[in-house]
Amino acid sequence: MIVVLKPNTKQEQLDHLKDWLHSLNIDTHISVGENHTIVGLVGDTSSIDMDLISALDIVETVKRIQEPFKNANRKFHETDAVVDVSGVKIGGGHFQIIAGPCSVESREQVTYIAQRVKESGAGMLRGGAFKPRTSPYSFQGLHDEGIKLLLEAKKQTGLPIVSEIMNSEHIPLFEDVDLVQVGARNMQNFELLKELGKTRKPILLKRGLANTIDELLMSAEYIMAGGNENVILCERGIRTFETRTRNTLDLSAIPVLKKLTHLPIVIDPSHAGGYAYLVKPMALAATAAGADGLMIEVHNDPAKALCDGPQSLTPEAFDEVANLVFQIRPYACKYDEK
Amino acid sequence: MIVVLKPNTKQEQLDHLKDWLHSLNIDTHISVGENHTIVGLVGDTSSIDMDLISALDIVETVKRIQEPFKNANRKFHETDAVVDVSGVKIGGGHFQIIAGPCSVESREQVTYIAQRVKESGAGMLRGGAFKPRTSPYSFQGLHDEGIKLLLEAKKQTGLPIVSEIMNSEHIPLFEDVDLVQVGARNMQNFELLKELGKTRKPILLKRGLANTIDELLMSAEYIMAGGNENVILCERGIRTFETRTRNTLDLSAIPVLKKLTHLPIVIDPSHAGGYAYLVKPMALAATAAGADGLMIEVHNDPAKALCDGPQSLTPEAFDEVANLVFQIRPYACKYDEK
Amino acid sequence: MIVVLKPNTKQEQLDHLKDWLHSLNIDTHISVGENHTIVGLVGDTSSIDMDLISALDIVETVKRIQEPFKNANRKFHETDAVVDVSGVKIGGGHFQIIAGPCSVESREQVTYIAQRVKESGAGMLRGGAFKPRTSPYSFQGLHDEGIKLLLEAKKQTGLPIVSEIMNSEHIPLFEDVDLVQVGARNMQNFELLKELGKTRKPILLKRGLANTIDELLMSAEYIMAGGNENVILCERGIRTFETRTRNTLDLSAIPVLKKLTHLPIVIDPSHAGGYAYLVKPMALAATAAGADGLMIEVHNDPAKALCDGPQSLTPEAFDEVANLVFQIRPYACKYDEK
Amino acid sequence: MIVVLKPNTKQEQLDHLKDWLHSLNIDTHISVGENHTIVGLVGDTSSIDMDLISALDIVETVKRIQEPFKNANRKFHETDAVVDVSGVKIGGGHFQIIAGPCSVESREQVTYIAQRVKESGAGMLRGGAFKPRTSPYSFQGLHDEGIKLLLEAKKQTGLPIVSEIMNSEHIPLFEDVDLVQVGARNMQNFELLKELGKTRKPILLKRGLANTIDELLMSAEYIMAGGNENVILCERGIRTFETRTRNTLDLSAIPVLKKLTHLPIVIDPSHAGGYAYLVKPMALAATAAGADGLMIEVHNDPAKALCDGPQSLTPEAFDEVANLVFQIRPYACKYDEK
Repeated sequence: MIVVLKPNTKQEQLDHLKDWLHSLNIDTHISVGENHTIVGLVGDTSSIDMDLISALDIVETVKRIQEPFKNANRKFHETDAVVDVSGVKIGGGHFQIIAGPCSVESREQVTYIAQRVKESGAGMLRGGAFKPRTSPYSFQGLHDEGIKLLLEAKKQTGLPIVSEIMNSEHIPLFEDVDLVQVGARNMQNFELLKELGKTRKPILLKRGLANTIDELLMSAEYIMAGGNENVILCERGIRTFETRTRNTLDLSAIPVLKKLTHLPIVIDPSHAGGYAYLVKPMALAATAAGADGLMIEVHNDPAKALCDGPQSLTPEAFDEVANLVFQIRPYACKYDEK
Repeated sequence: MIVVLKPNTKQEQLDHLKDWLHSLNIDTHISVGENHTIVGLVGDTSSIDMDLISALDIVETVKRIQEPFKNANRKFHETDAVVDVSGVKIGGGHFQIIAGPCSVESREQVTYIAQRVKESGAGMLRGGAFKPRTSPYSFQGLHDEGIKLLLEAKKQTGLPIVSEIMNSEHIPLFEDVDLVQVGARNMQNFELLKELGKTRKPILLKRGLANTIDELLMSAEYIMAGGNENVILCERGIRTFETRTRNTLDLSAIPVLKKLTHLPIVIDPSHAGGYAYLVKPMALAATAAGADGLMIEVHNDPAKALCDGPQSLTPEAFDEVANLVFQIRPYACKYDEK
Repeated sequence: MIVVLKPNTKQEQLDHLKDWLHSLNIDTHISVGENHTIVGLVGDTSSIDMDLISALDIVETVKRIQEPFKNANRKFHETDAVVDVSGVKIGGGHFQIIAGPCSVESREQVTYIAQRVKESGAGMLRGGAFKPRTSPYSFQGLHDEGIKLLLEAKKQTGLPIVSEIMNSEHIPLFEDVDLVQVGARNMQNFELLKELGKTRKPILLKRGLANTIDELLMSAEYIMAGGNENVILCERGIRTFETRTRNTLDLSAIPVLKKLTHLPIVIDPSHAGGYAYLVKPMALAATAAGADGLMIEVHNDPAKALCDGPQSLTPEAFDEVANLVFQIRPYACKYDEK
Repeated sequence: MIVVLKPNTKQEQLDHLKDWLHSLNIDTHISVGENHTIVGLVGDTSSIDMDLISALDIVETVKRIQEPFKNANRKFHETDAVVDVSGVKIGGGHFQIIAGPCSVESREQVTYIAQRVKESGAGMLRGGAFKPRTSPYSFQGLHDEGIKLLLEAKKQTGLPIVSEIMNSEHIPLFEDVDLVQVGARNMQNFELLKELGKTRKPILLKRGLANTIDELLMSAEYIMAGGNENVILCERGIRTFETRTRNTLDLSAIPVLKKLTHLPIVIDPSHAGGYAYLVKPMALAATAAGADGLMIEVHNDPAKALCDGPQSLTPEAFDEVANLVFQIRPYACKYDEK
């Protein structure tokens, strides 16, 4: 971290700053220029609050050089992480499509969709049991009953299951869930992240819709700091001024994350746009840009689909998308997969 | 809610839609125009998912007429709500300044600041015991020890205390906290909101930094749907592209919220901008615009303040701001306080 | 357009509104519901200002059904437009890469790059002669001298040339430029758009970095309303809160625009991200999503490249990207190219 | 400017960088640390493109210390600028309300409104003659006829007039306009700014709805670099995700601009929100925060006002707002007005 002092800083103020930094085990390297004195911070600055320093009276500006995340940092883990989800691998050249219904509704629904998406090449089954809903008056999910139905579908198809957790108190209910999803709204629910860090479960961490890439990595760091390195990142659209799509899918996050971290990156084209017609082009684009996986909503029999998710594909449409994805995959952008 | 159908919609598709809506206890009023058929939904549409309907094949566009929030809706509660926080009233013409340190650090710190802000006219004491931190390596607060120190300061000064909760499991620890704050990052932690709805504690609900005003009201609705009507809303800055301020304080939220809801509105000018020099102008602006209260960070002895919050005022600076606020208050914008 | 009136609207107010609309050649279709009266506007509502109506005292809400753009509207032009740029076609299945240096610097530079990008398969040569610069102290381009150098490179290679115009007074200077670019900052320079609408030159219209897709189409409409239908749209990144990329490339704009308009869509992956390492993944993603073309910056000899654009590729890197793009192109998302 | 080099930078690469900087008249100050070499740039760095340097292979990160604007920089002009608009002063303690209709429609309209707003205390008359409209099918203004009508109203009332220019070709038409407005959409129409810099006319420069405060100051710099120092800045709302207001009024821009520049700052509460009910609270808030002036839309006889701007006040409502503004003004936040 580099701290540029204001021109009129006094020696005793500088000494005060140095003493305080030393008390935090940070050494300083002072460089006196024509107009400005520059203080270089040497040591582990990841616990230093940059906002705090930038607001000191004597400070003109601050610049972080080292990223504040360590466990999630590519610099310290050159080789791509490969996360093993009950035998299904993702990352480091392993590509997976996670597919399934928005909400788990019934045994028939879940099992039927599981079989269909498996036939199309999906590697994991997703399904919501606990649903975060903006309105308290909306359907909130089947809860533990939903997880049971997912497990039955797993038994039928062999697909590992993925479901969203909303509360650390529910961790015991997710013992048999293969990949535990943290939703966008809980990306900075730090209490939940800490508890998940104590488990060794694979975690699918979704980017909050107004969170930066660095904040996503800091949330991954929360889980990893607890000792759980099985983190998969998921971009699902960010909030912008554009209203023709529900959110704006930020595909540049793929190369940026590939540079910053070794963790696998999954793209969710279903939730970002909010319309089924956007899923195919965005799934293909994400694949071409080198994502490690996709997460796609598939709904039940279209004849009864009146109340299914607007962003969901029918099994037939999903089959077409999956085929195109597998065709494009060999030509996808490659990153250093050492 | 008004649903505009696509020009080529068939009668049986329309009937299918009507049947489904009737099954949800929604009546329909059909109006056939030259190019489009319009379906008016009659009944309580607050549980209808607008995204879902807008994505149906036969639907051109959807428009909600009634807001999806009821308990928080000014239309059904013309009179301003007055929330009583252990004897200190806010809303309906009652104006309060909530002040105190970012984090509770020690007995001396909290008690000293409490006395100083009380002398300047503050009506409540704030202080963080559980701190949401972006980095797992940053100080996370004194936890229940911090709450104890706040309670001692309350005993000394008589000021009701305000502190942030991060997890529904902690609710018992907050039994003696007079006003329980839900932070911006937890605004859509629906599990926490539901649990707080079961209590009768006054809740200070902060707007998430990427949440719309409508989403803030839906989160208030979560608490109120549980029977807890003691909700105070707080605007604390939203995330925009501007980088000279940490967040952009959205003061237009005051008149917009005054129109939509009867709940009191508090502005936090300390966190929005991220710099102490922004607190005074924004506190005065918020007061002039008709806020029901302010929430301002005040730090300890400036001589030792190196690690205090960059957005905090000294007790002296706070005293000056409070004086100006009380001078401007009589000229502030007034809303219908029936 | 549908106008929902407030519950307490009087008949004479409604009559007033109807009279005014009739004076604008708009017929009305009134539907009286239980709580609300709905006014359907029949006729060409493209000149009606929706903001204006929504702010009338008696109006609860307004919803536009027909898009306010006509010439650029897919509904009235089912077949994809094919724009002919001096013999090089784009749109309707014709795919082109436009490549070249950020600024035209010298004859050698431009001719060398032109030859290299042609060998790699580029269909047009871009180069800036007039440069929009945030700072008045930055290099502003070679102006008409730059255009002359582009024309010489065209003579050598046969590639049609693309260059940005900043002022309607410069139109005569662009007489021999094959494709005239309107930059993001001038997307709503309506005076410039109107003048370009009087020409019959192909126009490459870039989306402003804070403009919606609808606003982009309204700006295309400005050009087309003047009789010039040769408009190509270009997405080049929008402004969001994310700071790891200069702008956020909005690839969802491809399917959204394909649905709304018949005009060709080009993606500029160089300017969006601001870093060369983002160009390859975003070029592949844009191709997979079904863009009609790409616009890529290529710089000169890397040994002298110290002052070249940070987002530019070397000719070698461009060659690799172009090859991958042509490989992915057969598997790209297809839209109705009737 | 401070440039941090990557750990593995070679001496010859560093020499290359130094030579290039020297060729631009920039001296360098090298500081070799444990991990990183830091290059301090000494001299006038305002013409150095920071993006360019940050993208060099050997550069880890760049930090600007000096702002790239000079003429608009408070550091070099401690005393508040006072702009004299035909005898009416603004800035440095002089506060003005600019009021008038959105569009000039007729002699009666403009003269009537001019008289009314003058009686309420307005210091200048605004009125649109050339209107930037999103749709080519909307009313585009009365053009030079509109300016003539404004001049007649000026003759009647003595109020200096303010009107928006959209094209440098129109500068001769604005010879008698006292304060020439550059609208938000033209804030980065650099050709227009340059031409206005050659005049000595007072310029009201509006912030673009997606432009940062620094970009606003760089656009002011364009005008001032030409020798025209009579620039007044205007904040009119920025584009965010919130949809309950048309734009989000960024009142924090007042203290931020007061710190960075000596130029006067005007707030336009009419266009930001898009609704008349937001004008009063935002006008009071802007005044309390220490703005140097307000710009408020006032419309004609409300009985005929059906097609007037939704954000306009009646003369009666304006009178009430102006009264409250003048009452609050003595208590407004003060900045160093040396």
